[in-house]
Amino acid sequence: MTEPLRLGIAGLGTVGAGVVKIVRKQAKLLEARTGRRIEISAVSARDRQKDRGVNLANYDWEDDAVVLAKRDDIDIFVELMGGSDGPAKAATEAALAAGKDVVTANKALLAIHGQALAEAAEAAGRVIRFEAAVAGGIPVIKALTEGLAGNEITRVMGVMNGTCNYILTRMESEGLGYNALFDECARLGFLEADPQLDVGGIDAAHKLAILSAIAFGTQPDFDGVEIEGIERISLEDIRQAADMGYRIKLLGVAARSPRGLVQRMQPCLVPAGSPIGQLEGGTNMVVIEGDAVDQIVLRGPGAGEGPTASAVMGDICDLARGLRIPTFGIPATQLETMPAALTGMPAPYYLRMALMDKPGALAKVAAILGDAGISIDRMRQYGHTNNTAPILIVTHKTTRAALDMALSAFEKTDVVASEPVTLRIEEV
Amino acid sequence: MTEPLRLGIAGLGTVGAGVVKIVRKQAKLLEARTGRRIEISAVSARDRQKDRGVNLANYDWEDDAVVLAKRDDIDIFVELMGGSDGPAKAATEAALAAGKDVVTANKALLAIHGQALAEAAEAAGRVIRFEAAVAGGIPVIKALTEGLAGNEITRVMGVMNGTCNYILTRMESEGLGYNALFDECARLGFLEADPQLDVGGIDAAHKLAILSAIAFGTQPDFDGVEIEGIERISLEDIRQAADMGYRIKLLGVAARSPRGLVQRMQPCLVPAGSPIGQLEGGTNMVVIEGDAVDQIVLRGPGAGEGPTASAVMGDICDLARGLRIPTFGIPATQLETMPAALTGMPAPYYLRMALMDKPGALAKVAAILGDAGISIDRMRQYGHTNNTAPILIVTHKTTRAALDMALSAFEKTDVVASEPVTLRIEEV
Ligand SMILES: NC(=O)c1ccc[n+]([C@@H]2O[C@H](COP(=O)([O-])OP(=O)(O)OC[C@H]3O[C@@H](n4cnc5c(N)ncnc54)[C@H](OP(=O)(O)O)[C@@H]3O)[C@@H](O)[C@H]2O)c1
Ligand SMILES: NC(=O)c1ccc[n+]([C@@H]2O[C@H](COP(=O)([O-])OP(=O)(O)OC[C@H]3O[C@@H](n4cnc5c(N)ncnc54)[C@H](OP(=O)(O)O)[C@@H]3O)[C@@H](O)[C@H]2O)c1
Repeated sequence: MTEPLRLGIAGLGTVGAGVVKIVRKQAKLLEARTGRRIEISAVSARDRQKDRGVNLANYDWEDDAVVLAKRDDIDIFVELMGGSDGPAKAATEAALAAGKDVVTANKALLAIHGQALAEAAEAAGRVIRFEAAVAGGIPVIKALTEGLAGNEITRVMGVMNGTCNYILTRMESEGLGYNALFDECARLGFLEADPQLDVGGIDAAHKLAILSAIAFGTQPDFDGVEIEGIERISLEDIRQAADMGYRIKLLGVAARSPRGLVQRMQPCLVPAGSPIGQLEGGTNMVVIEGDAVDQIVLRGPGAGEGPTASAVMGDICDLARGLRIPTFGIPATQLETMPAALTGMPAPYYLRMALMDKPGALAKVAAILGDAGISIDRMRQYGHTNNTAPILIVTHKTTRAALDMALSAFEKTDVVASEPVTLRIEEV
Repeated sequence: MTEPLRLGIAGLGTVGAGVVKIVRKQAKLLEARTGRRIEISAVSARDRQKDRGVNLANYDWEDDAVVLAKRDDIDIFVELMGGSDGPAKAATEAALAAGKDVVTANKALLAIHGQALAEAAEAAGRVIRFEAAVAGGIPVIKALTEGLAGNEITRVMGVMNGTCNYILTRMESEGLGYNALFDECARLGFLEADPQLDVGGIDAAHKLAILSAIAFGTQPDFDGVEIEGIERISLEDIRQAADMGYRIKLLGVAARSPRGLVQRMQPCLVPAGSPIGQLEGGTNMVVIEGDAVDQIVLRGPGAGEGPTASAVMGDICDLARGLRIPTFGIPATQLETMPAALTGMPAPYYLRMALMDKPGALAKVAAILGDAGISIDRMRQYGHTNNTAPILIVTHKTTRAALDMALSAFEKTDVVASEPVTLRIEEV
């Protein structure tokens, strides 16, 4: 095991440059820890002239990541370009076919093409590692796949998009509306090129699909994730929730249920005093529950150069030390397909809407909820505006189906003045 | 890799019985995850007749753990007897000498004899794994050794003795004194046979010594840990701390400093709103800081059958999957010896004492602090009892040496009526 381990790094942006820096700065430490020298043979990015804050003079340059992936002088192809398709996918496939292991930070790639890539890797006798793809610097893939390998996992939850959590936290702390914070994030460079990936919940859903594949031994099923973004969360909801002791978080939940695999990524109310409720800004948190371990909670930076490069380096060190595990913890051909249980388990719901300010309006709403079998835990009417009266209802546990039934019944009445806001209340 | 992996398990108490249960219950899952059948060849404990809630009929029985450790039909010796010396040490050494890998939950053994055992393991080409030895079900050894292998670790902190945290939490929540809670813990079976291990901070210090060896690449140095138990913490201190927005926790801190390795396990004040401040009951928390990752926080059950067995099984699965890492992350012969920096970095301190109720008493105390170069952040005198006046002082950052100078000056005056309580205030 004294031969150097040679990397080919495609993508020299935030994460790629961070990885190059660690390989250079910590060469001695990495060799002590892994027993091998870790070297970079070649790199690739779009613009060869760009200053990336790190000296690349000693590495070969490839314009084409696919060519890099196949070079004879690399052992690991490190994919840090991003994107579920295009060069990231092509180069990853080329690397596996050429007998290279792959380390990537690309959640979109894994969530969408994970099954095919895992099969390709195993057919080629290679491995794919992707710690950085989920929850940045937190070694959550490792905890789930390895540390908790003796557990039947029962539930995984997570706040895994720092930008959304930043927006939601600052809406409460600064009293600013969603749009103002969206603009702030754009200015600060906190948003992906396609902001829908962040605020639409898609990036976080990619991560959830990866976690649930490992947790439940199922093929990654991104299409099975019920996704709702944070765009419709108003300051009003944040305040009302806070008033009742809750915070609104973009929360992912994955669990096996009798009706199939539950995968939800949606804004939820969580108790303000719970670990998830207290999570501020860009920090991520993942909660893993297993039959033996009960519950563990992992918290840390979900993005950024250092934390993400730290996770990439963890994978590289694992490979240097000879750890070889199937992509999603068990061989790809043994991963189950499980139907998506779209509605999930019953839960209490938060319901906010404006009623027409006329006699009997409240009674009608209450009757509709009663007919749908939904009982009310708390209800509050607060103030009046323009002939409408805002009301807030917290239900006892109910199913999404019952709630949808009530919502469509509301539509048919003439007393509901605005489309109701409904948010699940999650016990965490 | 299709040969079964054969275990010999010595110790069938809380943890050992838990491991046997998981091996039996999750046989299929474990095989899918590791690619190998995991089998038990033989077991050992003191009392062959005892009902352990699990069927042992299919396993050979050995009265002598050393004999078990050397059996030809085992690949891994699983040491779950406990104790830093005696049969645990003898059997572990015998296993390594006989070419077996070792998995243990024994923090005392690793903290005290870790260096010698690591050397023995490496000389024999074998590995020792011990995830369960620190923070129960939390995969913290794995996070530190593997997940964060790309980091230079800067600080490790942890609340790692559930019994102490249970006592301290309940002192505040129930308003009960230390002795009442000690008795409750004894009744509930929360205390080790030698309770000093728990309330004296020794068990937690064992864990800290293990973590700091891995974090800083140093030989485990249990003797270098500055240890203070929780026996002297009074309800009064808990209340005064709470009043100022702090909680008292038995907190371990390890860091490299210019003067050597800091390892402290002592009751500290931490902000009540911080993750560590909010930790309730038997739950453990470990905070790891590294140059790339910044900070990650891991939280989970620190003890109990399921969580501890989960950690043991994680190690067994790692070995089944072929992961082989030096005991403390780098080869034992490369571990540094570093002097203990006994006093640590400056910090603010909490100081409570009773003054004789005579004119000028407070002025004398203030003068002594001033002479020692200690400036006062807050001071409060509250009530009177029997001619004495309790006072509470929070200092600005100061060194332990300056504080000790002030404490010995207090002794020489005639105004201090009780031995002062001093507690470090830790920024977490
Ligand atoms: N940033 C984070 O905090 C973070 C956290 C977790 C995971 N990730 C994941 O890490 C990956 C990289 O993210 P990033 O933030 O580092 O992105 P980035 O800063 O936008 O960098 C992307 C890099 O890929 C290069 N690239 C793009 N297309 C290429 C092509 N066809 N051939 C070769 N190189 C190409 C770019 O080259 P030029 O520089 O020449 O344009 C750039 O260096 C993504 O999958 C992302 O989801 C990022
Ligand atoms: N309990 C926890 O939550 C926890 C958490 C983390 C780490 N640990 C560690 O795990 C280890 C085991 O703890 P435990 O709580 O399971 O202890 P335990 O319940 O007291 O069990 C100890 C077992 O060792 C057996 N034993 C003692 N001396 C022996 C000898 N000379 N030969 C063979 N067997 C012997 C005992 O046999 P008999 O049953 O016949 O008396 C018993 O089965 C310790 O190192 C402990 O520090 C425990």
